[in-house]
Amino acid sequence: MAKEVTKRSDDYSQWYDNLVVKADLAERSAVRGCMVIKPYGYAIWEKMQASLDAMFKKTGVQNAYFPLFIPKSFFSREAEHVAGFAKECAVVTHHRLMNDPDGKGVVVDPAAKLEEELIVRPTSETIIWSTYKNWITSWRDLPILCNQWCNVVRWEMRTRLFLRTAEFLWQEGHTAHATSKEAEAKAYEMVQVYADFARNVLALPVVVGHKSPNERFAGALDTLTIEAMMQDGKALQAGTSHFLGQNFAKSFDVQYTNKEGKQEYVWATSWGVSTRLMGALIMAHGDDNGLVLPPSLAPIQVVMVPIYKTEGEHDAIIAKMEEIKASLEVGGHSVRIDDRDTLRPGFKFAEWELKGVPVRIAIGPRDLANGTAELARRDTCEKISTQVEGIAETVDQLLKDIQQNIYAKALAFRDSNIRKVDSWEEFKEEIKKGGFLLCHWDGTAETEQKIKDETKATIRCIPIDSAVCEEEGKCIYSGQPSHRRVIFAISY
Amino acid sequence: MAKEVTKRSDDYSQWYDNLVVKADLAERSAVRGCMVIKPYGYAIWEKMQASLDAMFKKTGVQNAYFPLFIPKSFFSREAEHVAGFAKECAVVTHHRLMNDPDGKGVVVDPAAKLEEELIVRPTSETIIWSTYKNWITSWRDLPILCNQWCNVVRWEMRTRLFLRTAEFLWQEGHTAHATSKEAEAKAYEMVQVYADFARNVLALPVVVGHKSPNERFAGALDTLTIEAMMQDGKALQAGTSHFLGQNFAKSFDVQYTNKEGKQEYVWATSWGVSTRLMGALIMAHGDDNGLVLPPSLAPIQVVMVPIYKTEGEHDAIIAKMEEIKASLEVGGHSVRIDDRDTLRPGFKFAEWELKGVPVRIAIGPRDLANGTAELARRDTCEKISTQVEGIAETVDQLLKDIQQNIYAKALAFRDSNIRKVDSWEEFKEEIKKGGFLLCHWDGTAETEQKIKDETKATIRCIPIDSAVCEEEGKCIYSGQPSHRRVIFAISY
Repeated sequence: MAKEVTKRSDDYSQWYDNLVVKADLAERSAVRGCMVIKPYGYAIWEKMQASLDAMFKKTGVQNAYFPLFIPKSFFSREAEHVAGFAKECAVVTHHRLMNDPDGKGVVVDPAAKLEEELIVRPTSETIIWSTYKNWITSWRDLPILCNQWCNVVRWEMRTRLFLRTAEFLWQEGHTAHATSKEAEAKAYEMVQVYADFARNVLALPVVVGHKSPNERFAGALDTLTIEAMMQDGKALQAGTSHFLGQNFAKSFDVQYTNKEGKQEYVWATSWGVSTRLMGALIMAHGDDNGLVLPPSLAPIQVVMVPIYKTEGEHDAIIAKMEEIKASLEVGGHSVRIDDRDTLRPGFKFAEWELKGVPVRIAIGPRDLANGTAELARRDTCEKISTQVEGIAETVDQLLKDIQQNIYAKALAFRDSNIRKVDSWEEFKEEIKKGGFLLCHWDGTAETEQKIKDETKATIRCIPIDSAVCEEEGKCIYSGQPSHRRVIFAISY
Repeated sequence: MAKEVTKRSDDYSQWYDNLVVKADLAERSAVRGCMVIKPYGYAIWEKMQASLDAMFKKTGVQNAYFPLFIPKSFFSREAEHVAGFAKECAVVTHHRLMNDPDGKGVVVDPAAKLEEELIVRPTSETIIWSTYKNWITSWRDLPILCNQWCNVVRWEMRTRLFLRTAEFLWQEGHTAHATSKEAEAKAYEMVQVYADFARNVLALPVVVGHKSPNERFAGALDTLTIEAMMQDGKALQAGTSHFLGQNFAKSFDVQYTNKEGKQEYVWATSWGVSTRLMGALIMAHGDDNGLVLPPSLAPIQVVMVPIYKTEGEHDAIIAKMEEIKASLEVGGHSVRIDDRDTLRPGFKFAEWELKGVPVRIAIGPRDLANGTAELARRDTCEKISTQVEGIAETVDQLLKDIQQNIYAKALAFRDSNIRKVDSWEEFKEEIKKGGFLLCHWDGTAETEQKIKDETKATIRCIPIDSAVCEEEGKCIYSGQPSHRRVIFAISY
């Protein structure tokens, strides 16, 4: 078959790149570092958006939209932020093209130079806080809970589809609060929303924790993260939620009058997930036959493939399939009948496996006579013969089982790749095998940096609510005392 | 009241600007020509998106995403297109900032100049057709029916919130077809989708027609449009659908093998509507008290305001309102109880009128005793006393009536401002009064331009399916023979 995918065991990285392209999720574009998200990939992203958006709105968040461009000077206001974001970015310097005087197409019109350069947003804290200044006067104006779905640009030198692209799609929430406590609670609430979403929708077990100061968002006092494990044992940061303190309020002079009539700076959070989640989805669940999509995100949940020789058989089977399709759609499932007459069933099976469709139903003449159908589940590749009578209930239950099984499988994999490591020699060996290493760390940036320099491993997070991490010990590197274990891993 | 809005009769233009800002729809940002869409405005846009997106998908269209940036050279490929779009645009020339050597913030790093400048998309035909080249080989790959929801940038010199901004949000559909006939049919189908949406969701009567060659999209063989009339009698182009012929296929060398094994260029359409529709909504229906939102697009369809003196009254009324709210929500309506205790009912009434909420329910102690409530409809400002028993049905019917009435009112206004004009002298007088003038035109670009130069009026469209236009006559300007009337108007 033309669309064969590299095996994970041969080359995990190439397997991923293959899968993204061959399953029609995305491809590289003519613009350096930018991707085209194809309809099948975008349909998955739309389902992610719909789930997350509903979850955000339940917490009182509203959507809004802020400008794509940020005046260059805005970045200079928050010192750490500029260091983290303003360096590798797309800079708009002119606003007009003109015909080339030499007749060769169009050139930039030197007369149309902007007074101040504009940066294509890499993230929107600065433009949003410059706006919030106008929205906030008194405690009555707080909290402000806004989110935007948009594109952002970070001029990454090495890009990979979905995982790291110059332009990507994301949502960024930006909230403003009267108190530190309320803002911290919001940052925590949102990381828990991400964790729920990852577990229940993406079927992705994640560890929730704090980032070490080194790994914090540029300008944050605390960064919370959800960290997932891919099948090669590497960590993938799947979403972050930041407590920004009063840093941006001070940079943009956003104060409010409290109930006592005093002026105070406003407290902030921001939080985001991006099309990177597409990469997580693919890498966490896919197998050597292709994608394995959780039913909650599959654009097509059930595909039906007729098996026939004569036209009469074809027509009778399709008629039966239409009946089944209608009964499944009543239950809210998305169903496709693959009636393409130029392709063999085997080719179709492989194609829908590649695309990760959770359930396949095949019906041949004998099935038709017997009132049966063959169900194949994508996650385990098992086939089951079932009665057509009551098939809607069977499929409904099967989809639920698949959703749970995909999660259970990923969880078992992750848990079997989390290990406690207590010495530096062991660490250097174990980190090569991948997985999450639970280690004591002395809490200093120096030690963290040295470990990274020697092994490429970073602290993925300091887990929250992890009994297994809460113990006294000694730093694997420096031997200094430590009060809890943290997670080290090689990451994407 | 602080939020008073300029009267339409005093200054229609200022009334509009006032309303956009005071009803919390949008505001100017710190970036020249770019707007911030505030949560209340964005919630309306989200409802527009949801309706349109479902309508597109019913026609077989799928969403996808293409890059924000377009290499400069792509614009040179289609000669008319570059003339129309590449001139006033945002040009990215560098990809890095660095610390100012003089210590004054950050400056563009001259070493990070791009080899080829990138244009922030003003529309995506070029980048999409360069992509379609890779997707299309044979007739089996056609049609391709893609849409994207995204931001675009056109460096407009004079901007107005929603109507004309440097950055705006829109959708752009781009389809590829094997035959001219099929592409033309798709362009027609999509303009009819827009017309349905305008009429049934926006409550906006529109005229569907062809643009004159002068007013066509840059690169199109035919542009279909929906044209709406605002309350000042000006026309607003609310959506366009283009038959692009093989222009872009030829520019990007997109050929397919037809069923006979021959190579042919692919046929194209593109079609779009934007946040400009927000402007149309405001200007078509608003009154001197504020917005008038059709129930289909109102983020809050029903607002309830309690009227009380004592805490006991308050609690009993709120309890009743919660009951009513629950019963309305069962019917799918969005409801808010305005229980803010620092504001008087009169202030709340004015605020929700300003924001265009279709139905207001007020309940006071006497209502509570009598089992009644006061309903106020925003479109007519009528108040009706009604029984609380069965109020869900009453409100449901009322919302339907309001939707229809808003449309009927706009239709009556429009029809009373469409006039046949048959002489040049009359035209020059009539055009000053606003409205759509149905006139004979000789079909030449020269005449069209002269009329525009002398009166600012343009041909808004050559109506489709309009019996009243199908007649022989003589051009109002040149006296040359004409086979049908066209619509002239002053436009936004």
